Amino acid sequence: MTAKKSGGLADVIAGETAISTVGKEGKGLTYRGYSIHDLAAHASFEETAYLLLYGKLPNAEELAAYRLKLAGLRGLPDRLRRILEQLPSSTHPMDVLRTGYSALAAYEPETDGGNPLDLADRLLACCASILLYWYRFHADGSRIDVEKDALGTAAHFLRLLHGKTPDALHERAMDVSLILYAEHEFNASTFAARVTASTRSDLYASVTTGIGTLRGPLHGGANEAAMELIERYGTPDEAEQGIMHLLAARELIMGFGHRVYTVSDPRSDIIKSWSLKLSEAAGNRRLYDVSERIEQIMRREKKLFPNLDFYSASAYRLMGIPTSLFTPVFVMSRLSGWCAHVMEQRQNNRIIRPTAAYTGSEPQTWLAMEQRD
Amino acid sequence: MTAKKSGGLADVIAGETAISTVGKEGKGLTYRGYSIHDLAAHASFEETAYLLLYGKLPNAEELAAYRLKLAGLRGLPDRLRRILEQLPSSTHPMDVLRTGYSALAAYEPETDGGNPLDLADRLLACCASILLYWYRFHADGSRIDVEKDALGTAAHFLRLLHGKTPDALHERAMDVSLILYAEHEFNASTFAARVTASTRSDLYASVTTGIGTLRGPLHGGANEAAMELIERYGTPDEAEQGIMHLLAARELIMGFGHRVYTVSDPRSDIIKSWSLKLSEAAGNRRLYDVSERIEQIMRREKKLFPNLDFYSASAYRLMGIPTSLFTPVFVMSRLSGWCAHVMEQRQNNRIIRPTAAYTGSEPQTWLAMEQRD
Repeated sequence: MTAKKSGGLADVIAGETAISTVGKEGKGLTYRGYSIHDLAAHASFEETAYLLLYGKLPNAEELAAYRLKLAGLRGLPDRLRRILEQLPSSTHPMDVLRTGYSALAAYEPETDGGNPLDLADRLLACCASILLYWYRFHADGSRIDVEKDALGTAAHFLRLLHGKTPDALHERAMDVSLILYAEHEFNASTFAARVTASTRSDLYASVTTGIGTLRGPLHGGANEAAMELIERYGTPDEAEQGIMHLLAARELIMGFGHRVYTVSDPRSDIIKSWSLKLSEAAGNRRLYDVSERIEQIMRREKKLFPNLDFYSASAYRLMGIPTSLFTPVFVMSRLSGWCAHVMEQRQNNRIIRPTAAYTGSEPQTWLAMEQRD
Repeated sequence: MTAKKSGGLADVIAGETAISTVGKEGKGLTYRGYSIHDLAAHASFEETAYLLLYGKLPNAEELAAYRLKLAGLRGLPDRLRRILEQLPSSTHPMDVLRTGYSALAAYEPETDGGNPLDLADRLLACCASILLYWYRFHADGSRIDVEKDALGTAAHFLRLLHGKTPDALHERAMDVSLILYAEHEFNASTFAARVTASTRSDLYASVTTGIGTLRGPLHGGANEAAMELIERYGTPDEAEQGIMHLLAARELIMGFGHRVYTVSDPRSDIIKSWSLKLSEAAGNRRLYDVSERIEQIMRREKKLFPNLDFYSASAYRLMGIPTSLFTPVFVMSRLSGWCAHVMEQRQNNRIIRPTAAYTGSEPQTWLAMEQRD
């Protein structure tokens, strides 16, 4: 059995999952059997995370309890706050999250007797706390209280970031974005997290692996690269000229196409509609109109469709999120998928240890020091 | 193309490598074409790391310069030392290393203009510094100087640990152990590090992935588990009785067998001979004799051979290394392999994103809150 010469395990089945389908014929994108369209239209992020982690949609009582549980798990140990203060403002925010979660293991280690789902909820709950405690400490010198409210994940994040409770439109746009980013089968960060889990390492190790892997520009960094591109252009016509120039120079345009989807990314139209709503509420359609023109050009010139990352960029900017925090927001959401996959990996574990095609030198006779070039 | 039902990508070729062969017919275990037997007999760890990272054996001048370079890269930023002091003595030492490397990215980030091999050397050089600064701070309250000497990696580690320069036997036993653990093709931690690298994430992310993955008891934790087992028995006869009991109870005995090797692990006889030398020098063969009896029983009863981890346990104990630091020593060595694989992954990169066989529920009709159980 050989992988394609190009590597990347494309189309290689690396295991089984019951958590989601990505572009599967007749199924599209589903979480535990529920379509992403239904989830984005009717559910909250907490409802979605519960579905992923606990395997069923919560009833009203369970959901209320789950929201309270998460809100109660947002505090950070004092020593972790001291550590975050030692990380300078120039630190890549993904490195802050990776370091924060790695250090949290020192104070609240996973134990054999503990319920891993409780730990998953803890890790899910404190993401905005780690990120924004550090961010605000450097932005305005404040040591913010990360536990003051019992808002949902989306509103809590925006409140910590901006220092005020968001309006309903922003809250719901954020909530939908978190739903869309929550889970995506064996993407690189989730797969890497499962490899880590397969040695029976702990949940913190899998989560730090996930964060480090998501950090790359080919994965989580794509929405940041898309933003950087979109913001270059003041008008759709400028974008037309600029993108045509980039394409002629064979530059890679981030936010388009997908390893698994071949026709479209079902999440794109959903976030695009929210980007439009946010633009109209802001009374400024520049980013949206530039984005839409870039989409048209990419379809026309490259037959490529936008993926989730592309319209997430303008939506996030319209919510006042700095570009450097886009990928960390992805973490805040994808933690639910990573943790669900770690639980699943543990249920029927075998260490993930592939093999490699050897392309190196034949056996060499030993060279004494004086014989070497 | 489907993976085995049991998962784990066993025998699936996940990519190409020119770095090592693991049990390949006619090649055995080689690093860049050189046999592990020659390396363990003639090379130093620095020579081996240079071979892995730079692709050739260094000549005398290059090796001297490389040893000096590594010795000059051992210092830790002040703020990193403050962070290590915040991690309590109860922290898992692998979590200390993972957090330390993750935080170092904040002070010395990988940049586009930098030479990744220089960064690899830096990461290789400061492993004992991170680990033992933390360890000694909690063991005896000292804030040790991690840069005082220009010893090789093995002797430097033992000096920082014990506060005195080791004798030649201990230094060479440690050096050989580091050579044996340096590289092993697509083992789980290296493969996970390559998945992280495949998103074009940075070297710190790959290394923290490697550490988190190695941490698991099915991977790096195996020599710690072997030690715990060996130390239970005062004599070979006690071991005989105890192991037969464990086998009857179908308990897993760590340190035997291997995913890739089917007949023997070529590293085992090498470290076994060093374990014997250390025992005889110590005038106490208990651990060695108990280990040898366990080896006999496992061959007789289970047709399993010892892997590198098994005799490493007694060798490390005889060098006065606490069990909790066994896996961190593995890191100190395997960093060379991880970094070589990251460089190789970058040379011809494609994101590593496999697919999964779906075993979950069929598409579900959305359930309004009041319809849920």
